[in-house]
Amino acid sequence: MSAMPSPATAEKPRARFRPPATPQVDVRGFWGARVDAVADKTADILYERCVEAGMLDQLDPDRPVPALRIPFMSMSPAAVGKPGFTASTVTTQMFWDSDLGKTIETAAYSLYRRKNPALEAKIDAVIDMFEKLQQPDGYVSSWYQRMQPGLRWTNLRDCHELYCAGHLIEGAVAYFQATGKRKLLDVMIRYADHIDTMFGPEPEKKKGYCGHEEIELALVKLARVTGNDRYMKLAKYFIDQRGQQPHYFDEEARARGADPKDFHFKTYEYNHSHKPVRDQEKVVGHAVRAMYLYSGMADIATEFGDDTLRVALDKLWDDLNGKQLYVTGGLGPSEANEGFTSDYDLPNESAYAETCASVALIFWANRMLGMGPNARYADVMERALYNGSISGLSLDGSLFFYENPLESRGKHNRWKWHRCPCCPPNIGRMVASIGSYMYGQADGEAAVHLYCDSTARLDLGGTAVTLTQTTNFPWDGAIRIDVDVDAPARFTLHLRIPAFARRASLKLNGEAVDLGSAAENGYAALNREWEAGDRIELDLDLPIEQLHAHPDVRQDVGRVALKRGPLVYCLEGVDNSVGLNRVRVPQPAEFSSAFEADLLGGIVTLSAEAESDSTADWDGQLYRQAPPKRENVSIKAVPYFAWDNRTPGEMLVWLRGG
Amino acid sequence: MSAMPSPATAEKPRARFRPPATPQVDVRGFWGARVDAVADKTADILYERCVEAGMLDQLDPDRPVPALRIPFMSMSPAAVGKPGFTASTVTTQMFWDSDLGKTIETAAYSLYRRKNPALEAKIDAVIDMFEKLQQPDGYVSSWYQRMQPGLRWTNLRDCHELYCAGHLIEGAVAYFQATGKRKLLDVMIRYADHIDTMFGPEPEKKKGYCGHEEIELALVKLARVTGNDRYMKLAKYFIDQRGQQPHYFDEEARARGADPKDFHFKTYEYNHSHKPVRDQEKVVGHAVRAMYLYSGMADIATEFGDDTLRVALDKLWDDLNGKQLYVTGGLGPSEANEGFTSDYDLPNESAYAETCASVALIFWANRMLGMGPNARYADVMERALYNGSISGLSLDGSLFFYENPLESRGKHNRWKWHRCPCCPPNIGRMVASIGSYMYGQADGEAAVHLYCDSTARLDLGGTAVTLTQTTNFPWDGAIRIDVDVDAPARFTLHLRIPAFARRASLKLNGEAVDLGSAAENGYAALNREWEAGDRIELDLDLPIEQLHAHPDVRQDVGRVALKRGPLVYCLEGVDNSVGLNRVRVPQPAEFSSAFEADLLGGIVTLSAEAESDSTADWDGQLYRQAPPKRENVSIKAVPYFAWDNRTPGEMLVWLRGG
Repeated sequence: MSAMPSPATAEKPRARFRPPATPQVDVRGFWGARVDAVADKTADILYERCVEAGMLDQLDPDRPVPALRIPFMSMSPAAVGKPGFTASTVTTQMFWDSDLGKTIETAAYSLYRRKNPALEAKIDAVIDMFEKLQQPDGYVSSWYQRMQPGLRWTNLRDCHELYCAGHLIEGAVAYFQATGKRKLLDVMIRYADHIDTMFGPEPEKKKGYCGHEEIELALVKLARVTGNDRYMKLAKYFIDQRGQQPHYFDEEARARGADPKDFHFKTYEYNHSHKPVRDQEKVVGHAVRAMYLYSGMADIATEFGDDTLRVALDKLWDDLNGKQLYVTGGLGPSEANEGFTSDYDLPNESAYAETCASVALIFWANRMLGMGPNARYADVMERALYNGSISGLSLDGSLFFYENPLESRGKHNRWKWHRCPCCPPNIGRMVASIGSYMYGQADGEAAVHLYCDSTARLDLGGTAVTLTQTTNFPWDGAIRIDVDVDAPARFTLHLRIPAFARRASLKLNGEAVDLGSAAENGYAALNREWEAGDRIELDLDLPIEQLHAHPDVRQDVGRVALKRGPLVYCLEGVDNSVGLNRVRVPQPAEFSSAFEADLLGGIVTLSAEAESDSTADWDGQLYRQAPPKRENVSIKAVPYFAWDNRTPGEMLVWLRGG
Repeated sequence: MSAMPSPATAEKPRARFRPPATPQVDVRGFWGARVDAVADKTADILYERCVEAGMLDQLDPDRPVPALRIPFMSMSPAAVGKPGFTASTVTTQMFWDSDLGKTIETAAYSLYRRKNPALEAKIDAVIDMFEKLQQPDGYVSSWYQRMQPGLRWTNLRDCHELYCAGHLIEGAVAYFQATGKRKLLDVMIRYADHIDTMFGPEPEKKKGYCGHEEIELALVKLARVTGNDRYMKLAKYFIDQRGQQPHYFDEEARARGADPKDFHFKTYEYNHSHKPVRDQEKVVGHAVRAMYLYSGMADIATEFGDDTLRVALDKLWDDLNGKQLYVTGGLGPSEANEGFTSDYDLPNESAYAETCASVALIFWANRMLGMGPNARYADVMERALYNGSISGLSLDGSLFFYENPLESRGKHNRWKWHRCPCCPPNIGRMVASIGSYMYGQADGEAAVHLYCDSTARLDLGGTAVTLTQTTNFPWDGAIRIDVDVDAPARFTLHLRIPAFARRASLKLNGEAVDLGSAAENGYAALNREWEAGDRIELDLDLPIEQLHAHPDVRQDVGRVALKRGPLVYCLEGVDNSVGLNRVRVPQPAEFSSAFEADLLGGIVTLSAEAESDSTADWDGQLYRQAPPKRENVSIKAVPYFAWDNRTPGEMLVWLRGG
């Protein structure tokens, strides 16, 4: 245990920015359409699929205990006979409570978006089941109470027990904020209290933490909504304790009669307990777990003003963003560990780049903004939002990607559901709560992190401010923000100037503001006494960028990726006449943009004249000495997030060229 | 059953070329060193590893029946819950007899190369075990007699029963030819006779064939060495019957109470029984099985003069060579089916390209030459020989590759052994018998398919001819062939003119021969009365080729592969100063060649001045708009077959350029 200052004695940072609750922001425009898709379709689909999967049979104490639906993971043929491999202790059925938690959270935001009494009644019934299931001591777990009774708290390393609690807490907070109903919140308060009696520095408590991080950030949400500092301290304990020696997962394994070395993933890097979190400098292991941990660390760094955490977080941020992040904001290239491999290893076709991982990066980036507006984090949040995360949800809200490759031969298509259904409710809740990512609020300060047609009702420590954005962003760079206050009030309004805008101009009530002097950390900070009717006009250039990757990204050498504003583009077979890898974009190429209202819900496409390697004169040869002849070809690119919503076919982000 | 003419009534092709037996050819030079490595190390290693694996415990009827060593394949986690999947009926331990067969075959050729009484005694003891195991009816299988008694002939689809018989027949023939000992040959004759009583068109016989082809070509070998046509007819039956309706594997599955649809690989394309072999036009399914089938088909086409098979074989040849063959002669890109996927799908880093598959392609190509010398087949045989096959054996003969990728980040390194140990003895027997691939012999005709310092004692239907090649090929293109005959004799000598030689000159006893008039199908045919002392001088140009792949091979677009003579080259990290994908070969590039006697046993290296994308000015960025700066770099390439014999590191065949 490191001896960190408590919140009461710590020096507070300048300001602690907290995201507004989802109901504080009304979203229209680009994101409004995405939220509508979730409210119209995804929220109901999530509930129905959870039911079909059998989750309520496992949860409902009034039903008989069901048979196991999803077998424990068995050895893969490749693992047979390899030394040290032991049969798995895991089935994804163990973390069904987390899927229900995220489904409740998605439903909560969706119910705020639009009334859906049928869905609300169903969710209320699920919440009743959790309440009925809860034991007198506060414990709640459909798996450990009904499927494996007697084994609770025996395998935190593998079995997602606290992870499930975390997602249920998040669901409870959201449902309370969106509907005002606090039954699940009260259930989870009792459970959190129970957890707090089980884990902590006191001698009689367990020194453990979850193999899958999540409860840390959930407890911060619970502390914020209840005002109870107990949960904040427990979150901090889980973070401080992680990776300390003697290692909890070693001792826990021995206590259940297992050899600590019999760990499927071999290294505690997998769950980021290989060393104390403040000593971690490399982004390693399971991608979603990493992002959830860093999110919790950022919350604690914000709330406790803990700069030792902040230093570690910035090293991890640099490592991810300098060496391990796809241009789409996807991350975690490998299926084997659902996570990170080695520096600059970013394969495109086999990219795992789980939807959940991009969603979780957005969580992390958003929480780094708790320590103050900084485009270093907001630019990446925006990149992951507009590309690698929402690519995981079909435009109509009904189908899902688990993996988000940057190249496909046409066989990678959306799923109705997944054996491990973590991604559908994760992208659902993220999209449905998008408003809370757009703005930040602190005492005397407001921040606009993302531009989107929307209205935000912010609380700047007693000062109520309404900001109304009018914009067609990301298709167009003109943004108008109308400020409304009950009475004139002094506060600082931070406006992000995105890195992609080569030129940006800002006007306040019609008068130009010098961005050179007002901008700090990529935000323009306007500190003044604001009055109702104040008007801001921000005009952002949206150039078409042709990005090159660092030469050590061997999969991208000699290739370019197209980007306009926050949107990364791709070619799809349906729009193009030749095999996509035959296309070569001349350097420099002239791309033109056009808004196509009838295409994919209305998008800006990018077009250019390019070259294609000809197959006409090969005469059955597979190899030859003469280089391929080149012919002219017109190409058209669409935003990456919108791919695979039409006829299945090839897709390519990194185009030959350069 | 199709009604094909019997050998007695069929019109014979012009000539039936048969390979000389291995002891007919003494090999020196390039291949002599490889054969020595097998005789010095590999042959003993194979035996020892078979013993360590427990194969003799399973085989020896004097030992107690052992416990299962290699579990039956279990479901992979990815397959759990997927419809239609059933637990596997296979363990690789089922085909241990085949590994012993190939080990015996390798030992046989090695014992001919050099005496090794200790190894010979061990192999004799193994043969004694097979003899002792054999049942009175002739049946021999260590698996079905000792591990799963009572189940013989119940699952030809999955269980490799006839495949094992085939490899034991090949081993028996080789051991007889190399040592003169016929105990195993007699065992296998009895077993083949038994098989012939079990399978065939007669009403009382089973209408089956093996899921893993192999016995077809083995029976042809047995027929040739015994002169007994019975085995030739049985081989033809297995080929003619394959894929006929009603489908044997369907009926066999029902007979053992299984659903024919519960087949792990879903389609009978996997084992090439999806349609009758004469109707097959696409190379599909498991690569090694495919090549073994086509080898047997080529033998039967040769022996029976069956042009219906030849037509199918040429379609399959075109398909493989025009759309599915790596530039190294590797084949079968996918691990999932150990085989073929779709046209032009030739991924480099993830290439499965099993050593066995290239070895088996050599078998096929060699047997296509049975129908007459034709560079169309010999060029490909040579390509696979010098590249994708012998890459599977370390230079010292002690370590093995199962997969032969064309790109590596340095983590793909040679194995001591493999769970499925098919490759080590396959490359061992192929290398040790290489002399038999160099020459062909028919009535009144001889062919030189491959150039290598060697002496061949050929039998041209009663005429004994000795050909002595003196050459430093493949490092140098000068080849001298001295002809020796007991008395002057008229015959045709076919000399291959490889496609890689832009210029070739031929002299007979010092006088130039016009290749334009003498060459047919890529061979110069010299028909004359030959006398002892006749001398041929062939001079082949060995240009450095920079090959481009068909533009539909998306993994190779904008890249070139280096080739000199038969050798494909690669860059290795140990020879080069920058990441290999950062290298760009300017077009056209000037490469120079140099013989380096002290490198990798003495090789010709290729060197050039190239460019490299600079990483110097990236300042922690992962993506940027400015293209990478280029800097000059000297590169050096080594033959692909010799890679991963030094410090492990990156390897790359397809270099950026073009």
